Parts: sequence; C-alpha cells; structure tokens
Amino acid sequence: MPANTWSRHHILSLADFTTNEYDTVLKTAASFREVLSRRTKKVPTLQGQVVANLFFEPSTRTRSSFEIAAKRLSADTLNFASATSSMTKGETILDTAKTYLAMGTDIMVIRHQQAGVPQAIAQEMDNLGVKVSVLNAGDGQHEHPSQALLDLFTICTLLDINNPRLELLRGKKIAIIGDILHSRVARSNIWSLTAINAELHLAAPPTLLPKFFADYGQDRPGKLFLHWELESALENADFVMTLRLQKERMTAHLLPSLREYHHLFGITRSQLQLCNANVKVLHPGPVNRGVEISSDLMDDPEFSLIQNQVTSGVAVRMALLYLIGSGKTG
Amino acid sequence: MPANTWSRHHILSLADFTTNEYDTVLKTAASFREVLSRRTKKVPTLQGQVVANLFFEPSTRTRSSFEIAAKRLSADTLNFASATSSMTKGETILDTAKTYLAMGTDIMVIRHQQAGVPQAIAQEMDNLGVKVSVLNAGDGQHEHPSQALLDLFTICTLLDINNPRLELLRGKKIAIIGDILHSRVARSNIWSLTAINAELHLAAPPTLLPKFFADYGQDRPGKLFLHWELESALENADFVMTLRLQKERMTAHLLPSLREYHHLFGITRSQLQLCNANVKVLHPGPVNRGVEISSDLMDDPEFSLIQNQVTSGVAVRMALLYLIGSGKTG
Amino acid sequence: MPANTWSRHHILSLADFTTNEYDTVLKTAASFREVLSRRTKKVPTLQGQVVANLFFEPSTRTRSSFEIAAKRLSADTLNFASATSSMTKGETILDTAKTYLAMGTDIMVIRHQQAGVPQAIAQEMDNLGVKVSVLNAGDGQHEHPSQALLDLFTICTLLDINNPRLELLRGKKIAIIGDILHSRVARSNIWSLTAINAELHLAAPPTLLPKFFADYGQDRPGKLFLHWELESALENADFVMTLRLQKERMTAHLLPSLREYHHLFGITRSQLQLCNANVKVLHPGPVNRGVEISSDLMDDPEFSLIQNQVTSGVAVRMALLYLIGSGKTG
Repeated sequence: MPANTWSRHHILSLADFTTNEYDTVLKTAASFREVLSRRTKKVPTLQGQVVANLFFEPSTRTRSSFEIAAKRLSADTLNFASATSSMTKGETILDTAKTYLAMGTDIMVIRHQQAGVPQAIAQEMDNLGVKVSVLNAGDGQHEHPSQALLDLFTICTLLDINNPRLELLRGKKIAIIGDILHSRVARSNIWSLTAINAELHLAAPPTLLPKFFADYGQDRPGKLFLHWELESALENADFVMTLRLQKERMTAHLLPSLREYHHLFGITRSQLQLCNANVKVLHPGPVNRGVEISSDLMDDPEFSLIQNQVTSGVAVRMALLYLIGSGKTG
Repeated sequence: MPANTWSRHHILSLADFTTNEYDTVLKTAASFREVLSRRTKKVPTLQGQVVANLFFEPSTRTRSSFEIAAKRLSADTLNFASATSSMTKGETILDTAKTYLAMGTDIMVIRHQQAGVPQAIAQEMDNLGVKVSVLNAGDGQHEHPSQALLDLFTICTLLDINNPRLELLRGKKIAIIGDILHSRVARSNIWSLTAINAELHLAAPPTLLPKFFADYGQDRPGKLFLHWELESALENADFVMTLRLQKERMTAHLLPSLREYHHLFGITRSQLQLCNANVKVLHPGPVNRGVEISSDLMDDPEFSLIQNQVTSGVAVRMALLYLIGSGKTG
Repeated sequence: MPANTWSRHHILSLADFTTNEYDTVLKTAASFREVLSRRTKKVPTLQGQVVANLFFEPSTRTRSSFEIAAKRLSADTLNFASATSSMTKGETILDTAKTYLAMGTDIMVIRHQQAGVPQAIAQEMDNLGVKVSVLNAGDGQHEHPSQALLDLFTICTLLDINNPRLELLRGKKIAIIGDILHSRVARSNIWSLTAINAELHLAAPPTLLPKFFADYGQDRPGKLFLHWELESALENADFVMTLRLQKERMTAHLLPSLREYHHLFGITRSQLQLCNANVKVLHPGPVNRGVEISSDLMDDPEFSLIQNQVTSGVAVRMALLYLIGSGKTG
C-alpha cells in the first residue's frame, strides 16, 4: 500500500487535502476493501498499537465503524463515552487527551460537539513533541473528514471498482440536499467534491442554506452552486447526497413541518426523473424514512448507495488509521 | 465437532428444534466445556469474524456471557447498548441491523423488549441474500433459546458428564415454578423439555399461569402439566427450575406481596422434601434471594445448579456461535 | 520477571505489604515499562485469561488504565459498569461476583463506593476454593493500592530509572496535601511511603485531616507527621503529592470556598520555594486546575510528574496482573 508517499500526521479537515492525498486514501481503501472480502478479514498492520475512541459526543454508528476498522488492523481499542463518564468532571478536555496519551494511546479518534476540539488536541500533541495522531470523527458543525472520504470512495468505486481515483469525478454533477447549515458532513464534502472539475450543487430552504456558503466556492470558480429549491439542483445530476434532518430543527422554527420539508426537499422516485439516468442516492445515515428520502427509494439497490457507504466506511477508516498509524512503527 | 450435520442458519426459537439438533448442541457444548478447563481457553475457530451484540434491551449478564464466548472463539466483538445510544433516533431497527451488516458483522446476537424482533431481522437478512446469522438473546415474552439450551446442558451434563444427550431426560420429572406468563425463559424451556418423554410441570399463581399454557402441550400429550399450587408440581420432581420474579409485577396487582409469594411458591429446603432425593434446583438469575428461593438453599452445592448454569452458558453459547458461524467460513 | 518469589493471591490493601513485595512490584513494573517502549508493546503472558473490570463505582480513567494493561498482556477483558447495568437489581454484589467467576473470569478488578467490598469478594472466592484473584481498584475511603504503587514507582523510577527500589526513599521527605480524610489514595500511600525510613508529612485544613490520622504512625515512629497549615509540611520536601478535591465537599460545609482553599493549601510555584531544589509534584488526577495546584505548575515538566504517573499506572497494573495472574497458569 502506498503509505510511503503519505506525510500527514493528523486528519482534521479536508480544507487543505491535496489531489495526491485523496488518491492515496482511495487506493489504500480499495486494497482494504479487498481484504474485507477475504475469508480472514484481519491484517496485523497495527498490532500492539492502541486506538482510543474518545467520543465526547456519543455516536454508536461512527464509533462502531472506527472500532471494527481498528480491530481489522489488529489494534487494541479503548472506548471512552463522555455521557457515561465522570472523567471530565472538572478536568479540561486537553487534560483528558493527555491522560490517554500518557497511557500509551497511538491514535486518538475524537468526536466533540464543539468545532475545533480535535484541532486543539492535535496542536497540543504536536507542542508536546509526541507522535500520537488525531483523527477528527466529527467536531460541531465544522468537519467530518472520514464521512466525506467514504462518500468519495463510494462514488469513485462505483465508477471504477478496480481503480477508484479523484479524476473519475471530472465532469460529474453532484447535488447535496438538506440541512447544509448545521452539517459538518456537507462542509467536508464541499472540500472533497470540488477538488476536481466536478460541479457541486447545494440545495435547501433559505433557513438551512445561508448565502455565505457561496464563499466556499470563491477560489474554486465554476464548481459550487447554491439553490433554494430542489429542481434545478437535481437537473442532470449524477449523484444526489441527502443529509440527515435533525428533528430539533423544527422546534427552532427553521422549518414549517417535516411533511412540508419532505414535499419540497425530500427525494422520491419522481424527483429522480430530473437527474441523469444512472443517478445514485447517498445519505450519511441514520435516515428518517419518508423525510429526507422516500422509504421505497432508500431500499432500491438500483438507486441507493446507502449500504455501500457503510461498508466503504470501514475500508476508508482502515485506510486512514493505516496511513497515519504505520508511520509510527515503520 | 459435529458441525457438518448442522444446517440451521439462525437460532430464533426452539419450537421447531429437532432431537438431532438438541444433541448436536449438547455434544458441541461438551467439547467446548473441555476447552474451558484447559490452561489456554481459546480456540481460533472464529478468528477474523465479527460478533455484534445488539442489546436493544440492556442485560449485562447475558451480554457478558456472549462476549466471553465469542472471545474464547477468537472473534472480534462489538457491543451496542440501546440505552446509551442515539443510533435508533428516528432510525428503524431493521436499518440499524442493516448498518451492522454493511459494516461486516458475521453474527448478530439480538435482545429486544419486543417479541419477534430477532425473527424480523433474520427474515430481512435472508431477503437480502446475505450470510449473516441472527441469534435471539431474548425477545419480549417470546423466547430465549440460549438460556433454555444452557439449562438443558446443565441437566444433561449432571446426568452424564461425558455424553450429555436429550435421551437422558427420558422419564424425568421437571418442575418450572414462578412467573411463567411473562417469562421467555419458560417458553423456550417448554419446547426443549418436552422434546423427549419427560414430564414438565408448570406451577404459579393463576395470575402468572393462565390456562392457555395448556395449549403448548396439545401435540405433546402426557408431557405438560399445569398447577396453581406448589406441592403437586414438586412431588417426585428430579429438577426444579425457579424463575426470576420481576418486582414490577407487584405494582401491576398480579401479586399480593413478595412475602406471600415466597410463602406460597418460594422454594425452601422443606419444600424439597416432596421431591426425589437427588433433586436439583435451577434459576436463570439474577436471583432475588428469599423470594423465589431461600438464601441458604441457593448456596448449597448439594441442591443448587445455579453456578453450573452460568458456566454452561459460556460453553453453550460458544457451541451456538460455532455451529452457525463455522458454516460461513467452511 | 521475579514472579517466582510472589505468593500474594489478591491485592486488597498495602497495610501488610512487605519490603520484598514492594521491590518485586517495582522491579516487575520496570521490566514492563521497557516493554511499553518497544515497537510491539504486547506480551503473551495472560493469553486466554479473562480480566473482568467490575466497576460498581464508575471511573473511566482507572478502568482504561487496567483495560490497556490487561490487553498489553494479551488477556481478554470484560467491562461491567454498574451505572448502566440492570444486573445488580435485587442481586447481591457477591452473587454478581460469583456470576463472573462462573463465566470463567481469572482476575476481578473491583471498584466500589463502599469500603470492604473487594475484601468481601476475595474472602468469598477463597471460601469457594477457587483460584480467581481480586484486585482492589478503589473501595470507598479505604484503599486504592494500585494508585499508591504507581506513585511509588513514579518516585523510585525518577531516583533510579534502571533499578527502582524502596530503598531509594530512605531519608526523603514527602508531603501529601489536601482532602486526606476522604482519600483512599492517601490511606494507601501512608502504608507504602512509611515502609522505609522516609518522612511522610500530611497537611490539610482540620476538617479534612482529623487527629486520628496520627494513629497510622504509632507503630512507625518518626515517620508520619500531621500539619494543619501548608508551609511546615513543604519545608525541604523532596516530593509533594496533592490530592483531588471533590467539589461536593463544599456543600458539606467542610470548606469555606475553593478560592480560599487554593489560597491556603493550593500548590504554586512560590510555595515550592520552601521545598528542596529538585522537588517534584504529583497528583492522582483528574486535576481541578487552579484549585489543588496552579495551572502553569501542572504543565511544567521541571516540576510535574503527573503525566509520568499515568504512564507508570499502565506498567504497574501490568505488573500486578502479571504477578497475581501468572501463578494460575504457571
């Protein structure tokens, strides 16, 4: 695997990812995807290393995906769930992280409800001159790099299963639909999906897609487009990514009703008529069936890539842990 | 081990278990019981496989037993506890299961407060044409097959430690005492303990043992008997299984008081006088000491098989995971 | 490693630890500290053994330390957290422990909010004639032996990294500052730090250091000293151990305010002027920055051993698990 060309120590944001880095992740994930189809799905790559999942914001889905990825690489895993822990009582987050460092953690996978926490911890580790790596598993409304990378891998693998690469996106039209304002998934995807000459179209009600999102496209001209209705975003789209709608948005008066949201921005079979014939639908999960996407569409393997995304998640997270982890022992 | 004669893919209910299947489980568990007595208690059977414990209803005891069984077989384990998870927010149970499938789970051990959930998930997996196996670890008031199988193994091992088999139950009298109405353990035990010519006697207050339980015995004539008082059930019994009494039954006005329940249906040393001389007592745990059973009797190794049951649990669960899991890699 | 001289089966208290036992722990921990600096940080010592962390009182920090230590020794680990468990409903603690015994647990690491629980469980195991070992991970206000041993290892390793031994403490002055009354850490440290001719000075407000603590020193004359103000305790000290202040002490009217506590008993750079030039500061964590110790001092590697303590914790716990665990398979 092409780890020898990898130099990034932490994975915190996709804002400055290079084309070469995207391709290395895709290539490495493809080789792990092959491992996962074998009878024995484990490799000894990270034997003796400790991967600590420090989830200050709970998430069973993402934590399980990282845990299974680490175990496939033969790492030992530690789980820390803030909700059930008295550890953080009076202790700063940096002190918690330093405690796991001192216990011998090699890689920290960190999720926190506040933007910037993984970056702050990574900075502290670097200041201390230690080799531990930090992987951002979602920070506030900032970024969720592994989710965007698994979305990318899912799309590129569909386009060329043997050789997924960023180049395959060239000329494609991708639409992201839903609560973009509050979505770290969308923000990470904006970086990855505009890294090549593809067109990325964002669509949501104005309350969930403020105009300032156009700023993300300023130095990437002709790549990012905003829509406050669904149809123009879907027109001739090759991929449609729907985002999870947090039901608490309702009580914040950002949406009139779930029913009306589904009527205006939900993806159904008839809406897909506007797209290209081979259009595929993605969703980071968990899905509110009948809200972001109609229930029958979600289950239709002709259109839905949702299960592929989950499988890609394990392969991509194995790749990320491998790329940042193998430097330590190599 | 005799896995080559095994064809059942999921273990959901004992209602249609064959004599041959019972004997295969008993024989396989016996061989794992031998492994557990060795210095190194692990075998590489399920190396690289993922066993996910999806406990929508929390249970430390059963989850620990499955977890230790899976680890003894060298599987990787994932734990999901609904209470501490936000995963199920708005997501259907089938979608949660499909997510664990897509992550690469090989065996799902499922507990849910609603009857039928493991069956529904198994059905969905079969519809999807995937190889993943489902093991029912307790669903509502329906069934708890691994508990009944460990009870069976505990009894048969006592009767012939080298060759536990269903045949050994022939002519025995077994009494189940307690809250049968709400007990999935009792329902699974009704199937296993009437699979051979043994006599199974159920005893409880009328509120906890409705007459319709007689229906279970309709196609198994002369095997199942109902009692609304304790003495006739205990008479000449070889084995007495007591059931856990949920204290919330009191508030539902099904019982006058714990004290009165113990007086009428609690098992004490003097009650055992009615039984056969070598009578043994079982309880699925956790025990309310002094309610279902007197405290001194529970601790008396001459009568109590309660600790044996827990040890049997690990051997039986290793056998079940092995039997449904080894087909996948073989 | 010198396990052949080790005969203690449970580690419950340091009250009767011998000089030879302290030295064996220090020497064994030193060899594991060396393992932890290797590329592959695992040894197969406890392969196939099960270490159950039974934390009736939750603690992420200590549980993670034991979990990582057990995994480094290749043991399988089980975690039980009382807060999220329905297991103890109506079941006695001894019954819970016997259940884990029956499942095949080899070592139980037990934390409980009540003093004496680990002792009671160890006693029960011995009565049953089984080989399972119990390790006290903190019981009420009684003892926390592994914490005191890691403190000792941290100090002795600083004094001679290649050959840490109790003898190195001879003639040293060590001060323990803070909520001694409620501290099991302090109580265990009183035993270890007076095991050789060192001077141990305790300092706290009178509400947190009752006079009866002098009793601990009665048969160890000239070793234990009590102070109700800070300065005399710090004078010429070689090591200063600060204790965590539970914020709930405030509501119990034992302290006027955190601000005043810090003013009178908090450790700052200027307070350290009273100590010896090479003085070092310890804290069992988690630290309330600016209460027990000033924030800048905590982060100053010239004075603070706090991170070393955490690392020592893993090495010492590996040593303890090894010493009590290897007897079972040897």
